[in-house]
Order: sequence, then C-alpha cells, then structure tokens
Amino acid sequence: MIEKKGILAKIFPFWEKISEDDRSELLQGTFEKKFKKGDPVKSSNSACLGAMYCISGRLRAYISSDDGKEVTLYYVNSGDICILTANCVIPPISFEIEIEAEEDTILLQIAPTAFGKVQSHNVEVENFALRIIAERFSDVIWSLEQFHSFSIPQRIAMYLYDEMNRTKSMILSVTHEQIAKALASAREVISRQLKDFEEDGIVELGRGKIEIMDKDALKKLI
Amino acid sequence: MIEKKGILAKIFPFWEKISEDDRSELLQGTFEKKFKKGDPVKSSNSACLGAMYCISGRLRAYISSDDGKEVTLYYVNSGDICILTANCVIPPISFEIEIEAEEDTILLQIAPTAFGKVQSHNVEVENFALRIIAERFSDVIWSLEQFHSFSIPQRIAMYLYDEMNRTKSMILSVTHEQIAKALASAREVISRQLKDFEEDGIVELGRGKIEIMDKDALKKLI
Repeated sequence: MIEKKGILAKIFPFWEKISEDDRSELLQGTFEKKFKKGDPVKSSNSACLGAMYCISGRLRAYISSDDGKEVTLYYVNSGDICILTANCVIPPISFEIEIEAEEDTILLQIAPTAFGKVQSHNVEVENFALRIIAERFSDVIWSLEQFHSFSIPQRIAMYLYDEMNRTKSMILSVTHEQIAKALASAREVISRQLKDFEEDGIVELGRGKIEIMDKDALKKLI
Repeated sequence: MIEKKGILAKIFPFWEKISEDDRSELLQGTFEKKFKKGDPVKSSNSACLGAMYCISGRLRAYISSDDGKEVTLYYVNSGDICILTANCVIPPISFEIEIEAEEDTILLQIAPTAFGKVQSHNVEVENFALRIIAERFSDVIWSLEQFHSFSIPQRIAMYLYDEMNRTKSMILSVTHEQIAKALASAREVISRQLKDFEEDGIVELGRGKIEIMDKDALKKLI
C-alpha cells in the first residue's frame, strides 16, 4: 500500500496552506490505479478523471481526429502530474484529451469532485493547476515547432536519441506504430525510414524493439 | 486620448481587489500603441512586451521555424487580451511567440515590470493571467485538430466562411499568403485551391481580395 498522504504533501505546494478539512477531502478522494502497457486510461468521451500523479511508468496524452489519426501532445512520466484530465473543474480548458499507458503504470488519481471542491475556495489550488497547464502548453508548442521545423529522418533520430537517454539503454522497446503516434506521422513512413537507418548501420530492427548500433551517426542526423 | 483607467477596470476582474498603489502602478505602466497592417509587433528575440489589450484591429500570434515557415497559433481580436507576450513574468511559459498586426491596430500595452510587480503580491493577478493562457492553449489545440483532421480545401473553406462571418462582408481583404500563414500551408497550395474554387463559381479572386460568390456551396465544402 502506498502512502498517499506523503505523496500529496510532496506534490502539492499548497498542501500546508489549505485547511485540515481540505486535506482530508483530497486524501479521501485519492485512489491508486494500475494500468498495463497499452491500456486506455481516458478516451475523449469518458468522464473527467480529475488530477493524476504518475508514481511509475509512463502515459501518453493525445488528441485524435475522426479518421483515427492521433497527435501526441505530451508524455506524463514518473513524478509528473497530469491536470488536463481535470478539465471539468478547469473552465478555460475547452478540449478533451485522450490518454493511454505507454508502459505498465501506477497512478494516484485525485477525483475531480474532491479537487474541484478544494479548488473552489483556494485560489492557490487553482493557480497550481493552471501553472501545470501552462507547462503543458509549452510542451505542445515545442512539439509543434519540431513538427514544422524538422524532416521525418531528423524527427525519428531525435525520438530515438531521446528514448535512448531516457531509458539509459541502447535497446528500445518501441514499435513503429508508437513512433508514428509520437511524431503524428504514418506507420509506413516510419518503417521505411527505419529500414534506411538499418541499411546505414545506425539501428538494428527487431520485433517490438530497435537497437541503436551507431549512437554517433544517430546524433549527427539531428 | 483613450481613457486608460476605464479600460483597465473593465478588462481586469481583479481591479477592485488590488490596492490603490497597485492600480496606479498598472496605470502608469500602460501605454497606447498603434500599428499599421503588416507591422511586426513582436519578434521571437525582441524584449518581453507585457500584457496587451486590443482596442481595435487584429493581431496574429505565431511561431516560426528556422527556414521561415510560420505556424499561426491564434488571433487577438478587438476586446481580447494577449498575455503570452508577458512570458518573462510567467515562468511556466518557456516559449517565445511572434506577433504581427493583421489589420491597423490600436493596443494598450501594460509593461511587464508593472504587471510583474503587481502580480508578485496578488495571487488573483497571476490567476487571471494563467486563465487566459489556458484559453489560448484551447485555441491552439483547436487549430491542431483542424490541421490534422481536415483537407486543404475544407480548411480553406472554413477560413473563408469564418472570415465572412467575422467581417460581415462577402468581399474579404485577404491575400493568399495570409491564408497560407493562417493554415500553416504554402502559398502555392492555397493559390491552386482558390483557383479551383473560382472555376467552380464559389469565389472570385482579385488583387488582395476574395469575393464569396456562392455562400451555400462554400458551406457545403466544410
């Protein structure tokens, strides 16, 4: 059993400023949730989830079009908070995101009723939520800049290089489909480019994994 | 001479909650600025401008890549506030936007020093700024959805239809270049498509203007 109180006190900078009742409200509205890699966490028409804190694993937040094309907005890594899932209690956010587990993930989910109630009489709580949203906005603008500034080979190289650094491994457990979703591209485009990288000796492709064979050549592409 | 105090009292919901000194600080740091259509208002490396209120006219906020390609983020219309230009006093915003006047525009510019000083001891001021940022985030996600969900003919038709409604005119003073920037596309692509629309009797193209000839046909394309 995880120690909810300690985690909430650590992640919420307003913890000591709110009343004991408000702290109890948040604690009672907080639940541990586990997801397997690939599980949907939220679809665009599912109920508002409230705030979520990622204890371990990784989530991918995205929007999708009617024809099923997905645009990844950002990732929620271990230690990150996702607040766009609390859009029902944050009026200026007028869009719905979708979320899936990129890896096996353990979350703390803070119910929107509890979060909304405490927020309604604590401007500090609302400011905290809005500040995280502004950070996510920065992430989305960064992705948008990448999308429009760089070619597909460059963007794939950046993705692989970042993943290598993030996971501290030369063998990445990632599918072509996952890269396509991360880069808002088509799987076929990614597969073709990865095959070119393989012919150049930069990577070696396996089932559901990509091994980096030449880190320096990869870096040069960026 | 415009009446600055009346405008600030109207646009800032926190006006009555802050001290008389803070109100003076904001008033003294507020200046009227005029721009001609096409004028740059802010480039990515120019100094932080503070908050801006659009009295009349229209601004376009965008990001641009190294090769000069522009992605329009949103428009600031008469009556709107732009706060992303105050990024120097709003830490979670880690990107720089660029702004140009889409039309002859009159602004009230509230210096970042004044805004930052008042914000530093009034959580309500920060809250106001962050809420506007969250609204802009919603605008950007909306554009992103359009970009990925709709074809170029659909997006041009939507642009023309929206402009017709916004300006309440069948004759739009807009160049192919402007549409290209609004839709993050290339001018050639827009010109080719507009020519097709002209052949179908939907629009008539002139120098720097587009006349809507068949509103219903335009709507059907969307």
